[in-house]
Amino acid sequence: MLSTTSRTTLGRAKDRGRTGREDLYAVLDAGLICHLGVVIDGSPMVVPTGYGRIGDTLYLHGSTGATSLRGTGEVCVTVTHLDGVVLARSAFHHSMNYRSAMIYGRPRLVEDPEERLAGLRALTEQLAPGQWDATRKPSRKELAATTVLALSLSEASVKVRQGPPVDDEEDYALPVWAGVLPLHTTWGTPEPDPAMTADLDVPEHIASRTIAMK
Amino acid sequence: MLSTTSRTTLGRAKDRGRTGREDLYAVLDAGLICHLGVVIDGSPMVVPTGYGRIGDTLYLHGSTGATSLRGTGEVCVTVTHLDGVVLARSAFHHSMNYRSAMIYGRPRLVEDPEERLAGLRALTEQLAPGQWDATRKPSRKELAATTVLALSLSEASVKVRQGPPVDDEEDYALPVWAGVLPLHTTWGTPEPDPAMTADLDVPEHIASRTIAMK
Repeated sequence: MLSTTSRTTLGRAKDRGRTGREDLYAVLDAGLICHLGVVIDGSPMVVPTGYGRIGDTLYLHGSTGATSLRGTGEVCVTVTHLDGVVLARSAFHHSMNYRSAMIYGRPRLVEDPEERLAGLRALTEQLAPGQWDATRKPSRKELAATTVLALSLSEASVKVRQGPPVDDEEDYALPVWAGVLPLHTTWGTPEPDPAMTADLDVPEHIASRTIAMK
Repeated sequence: MLSTTSRTTLGRAKDRGRTGREDLYAVLDAGLICHLGVVIDGSPMVVPTGYGRIGDTLYLHGSTGATSLRGTGEVCVTVTHLDGVVLARSAFHHSMNYRSAMIYGRPRLVEDPEERLAGLRALTEQLAPGQWDATRKPSRKELAATTVLALSLSEASVKVRQGPPVDDEEDYALPVWAGVLPLHTTWGTPEPDPAMTADLDVPEHIASRTIAMK
């Protein structure tokens, strides 16, 4: 079960809330980036960035110089998948079908070398499964230039909307087409780096990524 | 030209910065949702939500009860398009191709009835062009339940990454496939609401949305 703190308890549209940990994992594992919110000098800052998950810990990383990773204050991490535009009979009831997760917490600076590597591996694998083992591992210098943060998934909420529009009772008689225009995210054909010096085939772990992403 | 305040001037990866207002419009106009960052009780909150643009003003809306719209403090609005996963020869140089915009400012509560309607129209049209004229307009009651905020685009930055990976000089000789796995967002086939009482065709403005979204 997910947490029920005041900020992870939905105030509105409660029927869209999901409360299982597996619902949270499903949204996170299907994503490529999150939007990381931090407070800098009293103002919010929202940065798109990668992440990786190991159990109930989310890993974030970035340059040691990154403003968004500079503090150890509260953060909010949001992952959103858009599944379609919901076309209602009234402008007011237009909506999106989506799956989203919000995680609140105070990230921990990861200093243990093994955990740092595990976190970076999770980050790389989230973006491109199989790439960690296929590529050169981080050097000492690269590791020194990288901040790794760990965020517990203990305070999180999940929201999902799916299905057709919900219109006002009297609007169903209007002669207006209503329904959902689905949105799909798909992988294209791999584009080899023109700078490749050898004639290498696209590896199986890249070529086999499914056409339709969930 | 876009602003050059300290928070919209890139500290790193400066070559990814774009400085024209048309670059900002292009990122915003191609999007469906933004991630809105606010500070609530000292902590950040990041919420996915719709938006609309009229000239140099971004409109946001929501229920009058929405926590994310409750203050008139500083916000950060981020719009991100993912265009591909950048597969490098080293784990360290993995990246994403993307287009993103960040807007900072203190939104204004829109009270003028005409501007409120114009903002709501822009919000609906951003999600589904042509829908405002095709559907029932907001009632007095619906308008009373809706907060409309206006955010000036005066303080904004745009970042774009495209093209193949950039690896360390000595890594180009490694026998590792490198390149880009493109990501495409496409519209699916319209799904009629099973509750439709008449046998209506999918209207042209919905049916004609291009297969491949930019």
